[in-house]
Amino acid sequence: MNPFTRQARDSVSALGEENLIRAIRGWLGLASPPAPFGIGDDCAVLPRPRSQQLLTVDPVVFGRHFDARVTPREVGEKLLKRNLSDLAAMGGRPTAAVIALMLDARVSRRWLEQFYRGLAACARRYRVPVVGGDIVQADGVLAASLTLLGETVSGRAVTRTGARRGDWIFVTGQLGGSLGSGHHHRFTPRLPEGAWLAARRDVHAMMDLSDGLAKDLPALTPAGTEAEIAPAALPRRRGCDLRAAVSDGEDYELVFAVSGRTDPGKFKQAWRRAFPRTRLSCLGRFVRAGTLSPQSVRLEAYQGYEHLVR
Amino acid sequence: MNPFTRQARDSVSALGEENLIRAIRGWLGLASPPAPFGIGDDCAVLPRPRSQQLLTVDPVVFGRHFDARVTPREVGEKLLKRNLSDLAAMGGRPTAAVIALMLDARVSRRWLEQFYRGLAACARRYRVPVVGGDIVQADGVLAASLTLLGETVSGRAVTRTGARRGDWIFVTGQLGGSLGSGHHHRFTPRLPEGAWLAARRDVHAMMDLSDGLAKDLPALTPAGTEAEIAPAALPRRRGCDLRAAVSDGEDYELVFAVSGRTDPGKFKQAWRRAFPRTRLSCLGRFVRAGTLSPQSVRLEAYQGYEHLVR
Repeated sequence: MNPFTRQARDSVSALGEENLIRAIRGWLGLASPPAPFGIGDDCAVLPRPRSQQLLTVDPVVFGRHFDARVTPREVGEKLLKRNLSDLAAMGGRPTAAVIALMLDARVSRRWLEQFYRGLAACARRYRVPVVGGDIVQADGVLAASLTLLGETVSGRAVTRTGARRGDWIFVTGQLGGSLGSGHHHRFTPRLPEGAWLAARRDVHAMMDLSDGLAKDLPALTPAGTEAEIAPAALPRRRGCDLRAAVSDGEDYELVFAVSGRTDPGKFKQAWRRAFPRTRLSCLGRFVRAGTLSPQSVRLEAYQGYEHLVR
Repeated sequence: MNPFTRQARDSVSALGEENLIRAIRGWLGLASPPAPFGIGDDCAVLPRPRSQQLLTVDPVVFGRHFDARVTPREVGEKLLKRNLSDLAAMGGRPTAAVIALMLDARVSRRWLEQFYRGLAACARRYRVPVVGGDIVQADGVLAASLTLLGETVSGRAVTRTGARRGDWIFVTGQLGGSLGSGHHHRFTPRLPEGAWLAARRDVHAMMDLSDGLAKDLPALTPAGTEAEIAPAALPRRRGCDLRAAVSDGEDYELVFAVSGRTDPGKFKQAWRRAFPRTRLSCLGRFVRAGTLSPQSVRLEAYQGYEHLVR
């Protein structure tokens, strides 16, 4: 749906700010708790959490993360799910979200309503109260930035650092072709999987894949090592070649390191009992730098998604 | 300073994403703790807070909240202080900030560096760790959205609701002329004042003034009452008439309701001992609707700042 309208009466500016905020609270419905626990005061008030906290922020921008071919409901869902995927990658669960909206006065009310209804449906599904936000007019722009607060489930946050030489490299789901297949807005953030992994002490490090394995995996790779990856082990999405599987962005899958002392076959058995419907692949392991076998995928040969391009 | 450059080599796109993130961490310096407590992982990890939490978000957008006449350092400071003012209005103190940046590839590196250095200086002054963020390219845009997490100081969050008929209406500082005087970026968020007020049980409700008293005060006004305000009691900034004092935006002062049983003279005495340099004015009180004296300021006659204008 085209977010912009030529009809002044269909635009958000026709509503005025106060009516717009009232409308948004209506569109969010049960996803928006009453003030001061939600929208309507200078800050949202949140209960004291039970454990350490997690904080992340991710935006969606018209012309970059979505366009008129994507439905506004999908845009709202995607905005929340991108952030949930970051939370999953630490082993966390969500506690609250705030959203900053920047929009041109010509944005249509109908687009915005569907965007918020999509966000609200997703927020209810994942039990994330949307507790606040801000709207600002910005000419020619339609962008939303969501900040997600969460807490660790098992009392442990799994970071990107902590992998060691000899650790196994695992990845969930399938890789590549996210944009063409619609996976980039239909994906399911791996929240239960991330929480399960965080509870296992042999999971040393974890992250989510947003820019492609080739660009993201180096952040997980311990100093002095390289990732030995068997090409056949890469779970490629249908129609994807090796390049697509490692360099396309927006996979929103978890990649993580498991102790080299763990039996990968037994690990996969335990996984299948917990998540019979989520595919898990062992890609290989971290080996001493300079000792990659000739068969290994050479990640440095593939460029991931580059954000700032003139 | 003009944020945009015609020289490709001076632009952020010449840096590339990874170098840009590294540069930002350098510019933030001590304001940015190491990962996973700061930038560099999927989420920032924060310690369990001591009390209930506060969450707020506020953006700055080029062409709306600032332009080329404002220095980038001032923009960075203003972005953080706008959010600190919201926190002050609840009686809170800051614990962490994340920032989402949307920028055109032609934004100059020098502008961005000064922006982050201004933000960092302000973050150190107010002891707010900047723990994460996101950067996204967006054509023709320069906008930053900051989410601020905080906690209550006295175990109590002062909301906008809670004022009663007969309560006194107080305001800090001076009103009006914020844009012309430079107050809109030179203001000091009223954090110690807000915390002091939250610790007093006779302070029933509080908010910060961002859109002008005429537009903001109704949110504090109890149902069935009106604000009886003596025109001479309004602390007008030099050169401001009554209209400017009640309808200009960006005052970033606290307006709050104090129990009608409190002696306003004694209240001001206690205030002067605590904050000898912060002006405090008693504007009047909330009276039964329909009983305003003929001398009272009629707020509904003045329009505050309207955000969405086509």
